[in-house]
Amino acid sequence: MNVLVVNAGSSSLKYQLFDTANGSVVAKGLCERIGIDGAITHKQLASGKEYSAQLPMPNHTAAMTYVVEALTNADHGCVKSMDEIEAVGHRIVHGGAYFSESMLLNKDVLAKLELCRDLAPLHTGAHIQGIEGCLAVMPNTPQVLVFDTAFHQTMPKEAYTYAIPTELYEKYAIRRYGFHGTSHSYVSAEMTKILGKVEGTKIVTCHLGNGSSISAVKDGKVLDTSMGFTPLAGVEMGTRCGDIDPAIVPFLMDKLNMNTTQINDYLNKKCGFLGVSGVSSDCRDLEAAIAAGNENAKLAMDLLGYQIKKYIGSYAAAMGGLDAIVFTAGIGENTASIRKRALDGLEFLGVEYDADVNEKTFGRNGVTELSTKNSKVKVYMIPTNEELVIASDTEAIVKASK
Amino acid sequence: MNVLVVNAGSSSLKYQLFDTANGSVVAKGLCERIGIDGAITHKQLASGKEYSAQLPMPNHTAAMTYVVEALTNADHGCVKSMDEIEAVGHRIVHGGAYFSESMLLNKDVLAKLELCRDLAPLHTGAHIQGIEGCLAVMPNTPQVLVFDTAFHQTMPKEAYTYAIPTELYEKYAIRRYGFHGTSHSYVSAEMTKILGKVEGTKIVTCHLGNGSSISAVKDGKVLDTSMGFTPLAGVEMGTRCGDIDPAIVPFLMDKLNMNTTQINDYLNKKCGFLGVSGVSSDCRDLEAAIAAGNENAKLAMDLLGYQIKKYIGSYAAAMGGLDAIVFTAGIGENTASIRKRALDGLEFLGVEYDADVNEKTFGRNGVTELSTKNSKVKVYMIPTNEELVIASDTEAIVKASK
Repeated sequence: MNVLVVNAGSSSLKYQLFDTANGSVVAKGLCERIGIDGAITHKQLASGKEYSAQLPMPNHTAAMTYVVEALTNADHGCVKSMDEIEAVGHRIVHGGAYFSESMLLNKDVLAKLELCRDLAPLHTGAHIQGIEGCLAVMPNTPQVLVFDTAFHQTMPKEAYTYAIPTELYEKYAIRRYGFHGTSHSYVSAEMTKILGKVEGTKIVTCHLGNGSSISAVKDGKVLDTSMGFTPLAGVEMGTRCGDIDPAIVPFLMDKLNMNTTQINDYLNKKCGFLGVSGVSSDCRDLEAAIAAGNENAKLAMDLLGYQIKKYIGSYAAAMGGLDAIVFTAGIGENTASIRKRALDGLEFLGVEYDADVNEKTFGRNGVTELSTKNSKVKVYMIPTNEELVIASDTEAIVKASK
Repeated sequence: MNVLVVNAGSSSLKYQLFDTANGSVVAKGLCERIGIDGAITHKQLASGKEYSAQLPMPNHTAAMTYVVEALTNADHGCVKSMDEIEAVGHRIVHGGAYFSESMLLNKDVLAKLELCRDLAPLHTGAHIQGIEGCLAVMPNTPQVLVFDTAFHQTMPKEAYTYAIPTELYEKYAIRRYGFHGTSHSYVSAEMTKILGKVEGTKIVTCHLGNGSSISAVKDGKVLDTSMGFTPLAGVEMGTRCGDIDPAIVPFLMDKLNMNTTQINDYLNKKCGFLGVSGVSSDCRDLEAAIAAGNENAKLAMDLLGYQIKKYIGSYAAAMGGLDAIVFTAGIGENTASIRKRALDGLEFLGVEYDADVNEKTFGRNGVTELSTKNSKVKVYMIPTNEELVIASDTEAIVKASK
């Protein structure tokens, strides 16, 4: 099935056209500066043909019009008409407590998504515009929503509740939601295949990228996860602070003379690797800086490694044991030194890994076992592919609905 | 040695007179509503004689004058003159990064304490007023400062650093400090005596009271602790929220229309047990409410138990193993159901405890082993006594200075 995966941001729209028969990407591209001036870059994978243009994009519907034009273009396109595209899958950041699985779009579903707007105003607004854009230009194509939060909806109350007045949960839906659910779902499912069972398995999945989150997956279901009400919580990230004493927020607002929007922006965009190192939000730049003797870059990496280690121990305790640790996403797949920092010292849990294999596991080379034969706990690097999961989910739901 | 232990708050001053020869409290009392109108309550322990009065207390010096009068009173006092009181020990909440041990008061020490004012304005201001009150009414008596933060100063950088811009650490000293150091120091030292060694020991100390904190103590030194820049961080407390997604802070400020002072107050005073249960900040009230079928009261207790369990796992990972878990302070000593919630499921770490002993360990009955003989990890209830530690520290420092 040809499935178009759409990831709509407030002023951008990323897309990938999948052929789900073999999981390959047929074409992909990006619309930028929507609502400002507008630009599209597009690539046909088989031929390598590229196309880019400055085009007026007052809104996401205009952007989707150009996406359709690019996909059906005789030169750099890949389908003759949009009829060949059988479904659209949308990546949705926040599904609140309304969605515990991917959903075929209909009026009810769209109304529930509207209710999530308060929880993630920028993202949800952009998603709805992306959906409306698709409805306008391909009204007869079924659309599926795939939520970053859905896989985490199995968390028990004591894991998702914050120790704040209960009326705030009731009135404003303030609770832990968790994100990167598509990725945690995919890599934990792959890990259960390796373990040969789902029931009775205790897995910690570490999705470490520009945004990072760690999940405890017991019996194939999320028991706990490090991101929270928003993607700001958890471990240190590229530019996000992760968990900090909440009293630091008003303290900083007073010191830096910031309002609520500014502090939110600051904690999301100026902290993490970037803030601690003063160098970059990118692990690779930090490794270069460390090689040049930069102590703050080393501290930034030490912090993340130490925090992952603590989350692994914490989630082992929450699950009552540990069978496997999975590393995935940009840093999880490619940064041996972060995996080393996280794993060293976990021998008491039965973790034993091959230092050489860990060092050599670079790039998306496919599933790699890092643990030794004697290790009680399996340690794996499993490449994630969130877009492919969205395409597969979309295909399955559209087929089931027919 | 007769040591007067002083705990000065912004409008209150608690005191206890210790005879360190046997660790007994000779007299104790409380000045309240300092700066408002003023009241003192005083008790002579041997005779049980009590005294209370409404007295004008414009400041802490006036309060200390009445404390001296009460202690030397022919009827309800306990010493003939203040000469019999050989030292004063002050409980100081925040010593910043300046103090890693208790200190004899002198000009330099007082100047450094002044530098901590920004980190804990209300507490530090009150402490300085208490110190000045003592200097005014007993100028020749040596005074010792005992810091809640001092024991935690051994934390390594990756444990005390937040993933925020480094200049915020340099300029505003924003980092993890940790609190309840006196208690963690005392019970971890008692635990090392039981283990028969200090080097090579890995202990998690759980100080659970109206304020709660958990520490990882390795080789007798703090490696990590759950409270942070302020005592708001960590596990759920009586009225404090503990760790939450920092993005909740600006979100709530917008929703509840609060400024920085109000949100700080709210997170410190309206959350925790009180906020989640809607019933009370006190564990005993929650247990009564649970018995009456209150689900939110149960959730409030479940939350704390689950969070303690996660911290134990997290700190075991940080230390690379676990030899002992210690419970102390009001809840840690008296609330079997919280200990049960925290310990159940930790069998994979080698934790095995006697459920009957746990249930019966109620009240400050002295050191009690909860673990079974076969348990790889020792689990103990060890009553804390922060005031006695302050008195002992004070005696040791004053004797050494002579």
